[in-house]
Amino acid sequence: MRIKFNGKTKELWTLWREGGTVKMIDQRLLPHRFEILTLTNHKETVEAIRDMAVRGAGAIGVAGGYGVAQAAIEAQNLNLKEFKKYVIEAADRLRKTRPTAVNLFHAIDRCIRVASKGGITERVVAVCSEADKIALEDLEASKKMGECGNALIDDGFRILTHCNAGALAFIDNGSALAPIRVAHRAGKHIFVYADETRPRSQGAKLTAWELQQEGIPYALIVDNAAGHYMHLGEVDFVIVGADRIAANGDTANKIGTYEKAVLARENRIPFYVAAPRMTFDLKCRSGDKIEIEKRNPDEVNWVWGADEKGNLTKVRISAEGTNALNPSFDVTPAKYITGFITDAGVLKPPFRLNIHEAFHPRKSSKT
Amino acid sequence: MRIKFNGKTKELWTLWREGGTVKMIDQRLLPHRFEILTLTNHKETVEAIRDMAVRGAGAIGVAGGYGVAQAAIEAQNLNLKEFKKYVIEAADRLRKTRPTAVNLFHAIDRCIRVASKGGITERVVAVCSEADKIALEDLEASKKMGECGNALIDDGFRILTHCNAGALAFIDNGSALAPIRVAHRAGKHIFVYADETRPRSQGAKLTAWELQQEGIPYALIVDNAAGHYMHLGEVDFVIVGADRIAANGDTANKIGTYEKAVLARENRIPFYVAAPRMTFDLKCRSGDKIEIEKRNPDEVNWVWGADEKGNLTKVRISAEGTNALNPSFDVTPAKYITGFITDAGVLKPPFRLNIHEAFHPRKSSKT
Repeated sequence: MRIKFNGKTKELWTLWREGGTVKMIDQRLLPHRFEILTLTNHKETVEAIRDMAVRGAGAIGVAGGYGVAQAAIEAQNLNLKEFKKYVIEAADRLRKTRPTAVNLFHAIDRCIRVASKGGITERVVAVCSEADKIALEDLEASKKMGECGNALIDDGFRILTHCNAGALAFIDNGSALAPIRVAHRAGKHIFVYADETRPRSQGAKLTAWELQQEGIPYALIVDNAAGHYMHLGEVDFVIVGADRIAANGDTANKIGTYEKAVLARENRIPFYVAAPRMTFDLKCRSGDKIEIEKRNPDEVNWVWGADEKGNLTKVRISAEGTNALNPSFDVTPAKYITGFITDAGVLKPPFRLNIHEAFHPRKSSKT
Repeated sequence: MRIKFNGKTKELWTLWREGGTVKMIDQRLLPHRFEILTLTNHKETVEAIRDMAVRGAGAIGVAGGYGVAQAAIEAQNLNLKEFKKYVIEAADRLRKTRPTAVNLFHAIDRCIRVASKGGITERVVAVCSEADKIALEDLEASKKMGECGNALIDDGFRILTHCNAGALAFIDNGSALAPIRVAHRAGKHIFVYADETRPRSQGAKLTAWELQQEGIPYALIVDNAAGHYMHLGEVDFVIVGADRIAANGDTANKIGTYEKAVLARENRIPFYVAAPRMTFDLKCRSGDKIEIEKRNPDEVNWVWGADEKGNLTKVRISAEGTNALNPSFDVTPAKYITGFITDAGVLKPPFRLNIHEAFHPRKSSKT
């Protein structure tokens, strides 16, 4: 992604590996501070994931793989038995950081699998290579989503997005923001409405910041204003990310996504979900099987930001003892979704069939 | 309204008059501090309205009337010519405080009208009496809305409300919160979802606080979560206030009201607007004639609250230079509205006819 930093413009990934060191943009400080975290061993990476210095399904998966690679490098001078024990323990630590991100488990599993054969050096090389491969696959998926999503975006489109499914949620480009980046770089005149996305305000903190860095015309709006602009006819296209997509297309994503989907359909605006294939959960038949995480009500009662002196702090907006409910995700029934922008192309209804086929492509019949 | 204050429970109005002094709850400090402002002359009342120590259509109207009464008392020892000049200048000052609140102009006009006849003492008495009458009419309208709204609320209802159309927006009881208060006091087991209502968070700061004070079971939720609970079947009834209602029933209210109305209809949940007759603008044929106020984007970029030490302060949630849009109201087309809860009863479709008749009751024909 493009970052303006100390007067220079740089192209950066959300996180990357330099030998046994992992570097990442510290997302806890955005948009108020831009700092690169340097994590010199896997335990520091564990802490960075747990404390949400890195967040977003894709980015967490890559961080998990890098963590296993760090552990393998750290253990390279041990004997084989000790090496195995060290790496397995590191993987367990990484797994325990975030309970819901399926990408994390997939990435760790893949790295552990390649560490099970050959001598230690061979194993270390294999783990590092697999971790790097996961990062490159993430990057590749974002690029493909960007390309096929861009084909849906006309010149002049005003596009609404919710939460942050941007570069910061992946290695680069993002899912929902990938087509927006490609369309902008292709010279299309687009305008993006970024929903604030309470309670954690990722739209205000991350999406608006990403768009500002890229020079893409945008406006930050409160979540309440999205419907207003749709109703005025000032939104042509809605694109969001996803946390988990059932086999029938029902989609769990950040709280508020369902509201925007209903409003889009009511106003006849195309509503697309952008997600790589690894976000689809084919074992989950429909959305009512997806459990909705209820998070700490403090996220509703308190708001984080920078005070007038620039110090990072939080303010309580409600009275002491206020009872708050904080569902973190909602489920958008497939009927409100126009299509899925994936790394295997755009999937249209009937979703159960077309999602199935994206994962099980028909072999060309030889008779 | 019921206020718990220093361990005692009191019944208080939002504002009231004690001779030439106006007292009001300072709403700028809620819910973090509970303070009564004492305004000893009309210029202090002007400042209190301008600086939003008092807000809400009904409450602002009453404050305007009280301000004229203060001016008349202040001028009672002048000669008649000077008295008139003093009161007219005071009325002008009061009018300039808030440009959009039609109640303010109505109240000031009424008080000025009664100040135009008789000797000075007679005029002072008449103005004070008219100002008090406006307050009592406001109170009466809230009571009537409470009663006829309560008839729509079943035992066990889970009710969603948006923004603050509570006691704090009127002299007492409120519009949307009046039926909720009556239902609760009648022993119905109700539960209220209070939308936070970004950007100014009146739901978090005022509505949740009012419900907490009254002991009405409630939960504060982010605006994004309202649709989620509707979709889960956990909302039985939606009730909101209004800033201006056109002759056909199209309703301007706090930004986000339109979203909740669409979601209510999609989930087959009754959606009611509670407002006294003075909120209806029969000269306005339909909602597309209502101009939407665009407020300062700082309200989107910054959030006010109390820090961990209890100091009132604000934090910036977005990056410096973030472009934000801040429409303050939206218009909900009448087709999404189940009915209006007014001081003249519940109005159902066809709205144009039934709104007209509420203002022009048919005379019983004598032949």
